[in-house]
Amino acid sequence: MLNPVTPEFEAQLRAALPPAAFKDDTALYMSEPRGRWTGQGLVIAPSSTEEVATLVKACAEAKVGIIPYGGGTGLVGGQLTDEGPKSVVISLERMNKIRAVYPTENVLVCDAGVILADVQNAAEDVDRLFPLSLASEGSARIGGLLSTNAGGVNVLRYGNARALCLGLEVVRPDGTIWHGLTRLRKDNTGYDLRDLMIGAEGTLGIITAAALKLAPRPVGIGAAMMAVPSPQAALDLLALAGARIGDGISAFEIMHRQGMDFLTEVGPELRQPFAEVPEWCVLVDVGLPAGLSPEDALEGLFEASFEQGLVTDGVIAQSRGQRQELWDIRENIPEANRRIGSVSSHDIALPLSVIPDFIEQGGKALAEVGDFRINCFGHLGDGNLHYNVFPAQGRSRDEYDALRGAVKQTVHDLVSEMEGSVSAEHGIGRLKVSDLEKYGDPAKLAMLCAIKDALDPQGIMNPGAVLRARG
Amino acid sequence: MLNPVTPEFEAQLRAALPPAAFKDDTALYMSEPRGRWTGQGLVIAPSSTEEVATLVKACAEAKVGIIPYGGGTGLVGGQLTDEGPKSVVISLERMNKIRAVYPTENVLVCDAGVILADVQNAAEDVDRLFPLSLASEGSARIGGLLSTNAGGVNVLRYGNARALCLGLEVVRPDGTIWHGLTRLRKDNTGYDLRDLMIGAEGTLGIITAAALKLAPRPVGIGAAMMAVPSPQAALDLLALAGARIGDGISAFEIMHRQGMDFLTEVGPELRQPFAEVPEWCVLVDVGLPAGLSPEDALEGLFEASFEQGLVTDGVIAQSRGQRQELWDIRENIPEANRRIGSVSSHDIALPLSVIPDFIEQGGKALAEVGDFRINCFGHLGDGNLHYNVFPAQGRSRDEYDALRGAVKQTVHDLVSEMEGSVSAEHGIGRLKVSDLEKYGDPAKLAMLCAIKDALDPQGIMNPGAVLRARG
Repeated sequence: MLNPVTPEFEAQLRAALPPAAFKDDTALYMSEPRGRWTGQGLVIAPSSTEEVATLVKACAEAKVGIIPYGGGTGLVGGQLTDEGPKSVVISLERMNKIRAVYPTENVLVCDAGVILADVQNAAEDVDRLFPLSLASEGSARIGGLLSTNAGGVNVLRYGNARALCLGLEVVRPDGTIWHGLTRLRKDNTGYDLRDLMIGAEGTLGIITAAALKLAPRPVGIGAAMMAVPSPQAALDLLALAGARIGDGISAFEIMHRQGMDFLTEVGPELRQPFAEVPEWCVLVDVGLPAGLSPEDALEGLFEASFEQGLVTDGVIAQSRGQRQELWDIRENIPEANRRIGSVSSHDIALPLSVIPDFIEQGGKALAEVGDFRINCFGHLGDGNLHYNVFPAQGRSRDEYDALRGAVKQTVHDLVSEMEGSVSAEHGIGRLKVSDLEKYGDPAKLAMLCAIKDALDPQGIMNPGAVLRARG
Repeated sequence: MLNPVTPEFEAQLRAALPPAAFKDDTALYMSEPRGRWTGQGLVIAPSSTEEVATLVKACAEAKVGIIPYGGGTGLVGGQLTDEGPKSVVISLERMNKIRAVYPTENVLVCDAGVILADVQNAAEDVDRLFPLSLASEGSARIGGLLSTNAGGVNVLRYGNARALCLGLEVVRPDGTIWHGLTRLRKDNTGYDLRDLMIGAEGTLGIITAAALKLAPRPVGIGAAMMAVPSPQAALDLLALAGARIGDGISAFEIMHRQGMDFLTEVGPELRQPFAEVPEWCVLVDVGLPAGLSPEDALEGLFEASFEQGLVTDGVIAQSRGQRQELWDIRENIPEANRRIGSVSSHDIALPLSVIPDFIEQGGKALAEVGDFRINCFGHLGDGNLHYNVFPAQGRSRDEYDALRGAVKQTVHDLVSEMEGSVSAEHGIGRLKVSDLEKYGDPAKLAMLCAIKDALDPQGIMNPGAVLRARG
């Protein structure tokens, strides 16, 4: 069992670290975006890797739990808890320097506390692209994004956060520092500790800095929204787009009419691209090298797919502004969802080819549970759906409290049957610990526990996240 | 300490597995490409994952070492040893089925014993590309390629073996099976065991099957060889190519004149593209989507770089045959090297921008050690050089025996000073265990050992590879 932060331990930490590291108002850190979890803890924001190491070492010696805190935007409760003995919350917000940019290497090295948008801007300053992009990019920090292996809209082309990182600096659970901040593209010297730390949600150590991969900026960017008759047609369109445009497809997002209806119902108010809202539509985003016109590429794709019956209508952005308008629709669906208020939200991944079947079977199975509206949208190119279940029109979320468990189980059971994942990009946090236990392969679970015990034998790092806290 | 294979243990295995699994002539498995290592062991080739599991379980109970064997093409002695108690060598050669191909998902699932060229061909059959490509593709097997996180010529664009794998099936050191053969593009449910197994060189388990990522086949492929005045000019050309052609650059290889001279000296005899062999040249390979001409793209790159003084001469392939001729030069350099016979070969990675400095300093430092010819070539786009040191003209390799250690240390010390890697793509095997110990970060080494102990507590999996065998 871990020990709580005592007044004596806090005094010890205050003697070891500068006063600026201690946050007076800690309420900020004790809630999360969906309002489902609250936290407790002593919030400390070190200003250097050495201060993080000092702090972790003190916690290790006192056997006090540590919760690493990035931008606080996680959706699965990985960044806070009010269970167990009072922990130290380590916020990386003061470690927010971009350490170096190497344009000729396409590499940027930064502290873990840098906000994603600041990395994107620093890359743009040297005419490069840092491709990680997601709704919370104005507040999410690099350490948290790596610890949760964040996804977002450009995974199809550039991979998730893991694929965008070359090296890490990590403070281990005993306070020693792993200097793994390599800028190398290839390094086959031993097990892949980088990818192990990425996605570990702060349970194996604290990421304090990262060497990130930049990409050349695509010369021509463009987007189109296309109405498709079915999810299967959307998949066929994806394959056709891949054959015609290859790596030039940056994003391929699917949206169900329900999301558009929510936007109309509760806002934010946006201009709809189609006169009549289609049952399904996709947003295709392209980034092409010099010599190719995005509009021509999308026009050609539209014509070919129209001939094959894969699309029924389409809007091709003729300017950056129009492209942004199309993206605004996609990016405001989560806000509309929040305003409606979901019964249960699911961040799932499926093998691409079973997605149409999943959508059909999922709808049928839920209809037997109750009367719902389903908003299914997301990163179709990655097989990642945000499959969110809402009250029927005119009914309130509270009326569904008793059904929430059944909804979740219905969806997750079907996902598991179809060899999918119950957490595609949001992670396990504390919300899905029991799902991991229930749906995870036993050999996998045994390995996860063995690794946790090996690298954090006291269990002080983010206790209760990913794996159940011991003791 | 592990136990050797005894006649009794062999009899036990023969009772548990079909006769066809036992290889009569085991000499094949007891040597490796450079002839530096020999092996010993009882060679068994199971025909299914279940048979592998049975075999591993028996070895675990008897505490007998296991050496996983793929195509036998590894260059660092990971696939054989004659040290320690006699082990069981598990060859995956009979597990050579392509289990399923999902063209619409860009996924292929196969046994670990499938030869790389067969995977490439199966992908081509459905108009897809499996991008992993290297000299030994006609004999290297998928399990070994993943276990060593193989690189090759297309890493710049498509990543190394790790980046081309979605899921794994692995027999753990206790004989249980991890069913991780997912086709998902995203799955954030727990630590990244896939990337941990990939590159572990068979020390944490035996990969028995893999789900591999395919890519759309580029519509237009082409190549050019360009003479550059210096390694710095080659790097500037790489940056210019990235800005102009983006992801379309599939490979960017550098070659020093020494390699061409070796080809002239000992063959294989090939047509040289330049009238006068340049000091340095690069091979640029492109794969472009429909609508772009590779010849035009390379012509434009050549003109722009010629104007900037980055290239002095160039040959652009005008046909697939001509492209192959350019590649033949690059791909036959290792054979010419073998015929000359190196004093010491180094597979190193460096941050891209320090490479010119490394080449200059490395040459100077080695000149103080002795009289050598240096053939420096490789995957410049990845910062991966094959930096091979040869006897001076007219002298024999044997004369340098006493200098071999000093050569290796000189090169590796410099690589380490410049924050590079002493094994970019070949792995650690048994050849570089002491290098890993010497140059590895202490916190990293502690984590490697902790993970090995956690996942293979008896130390039976590929004992002595990557990490020193215990006992």
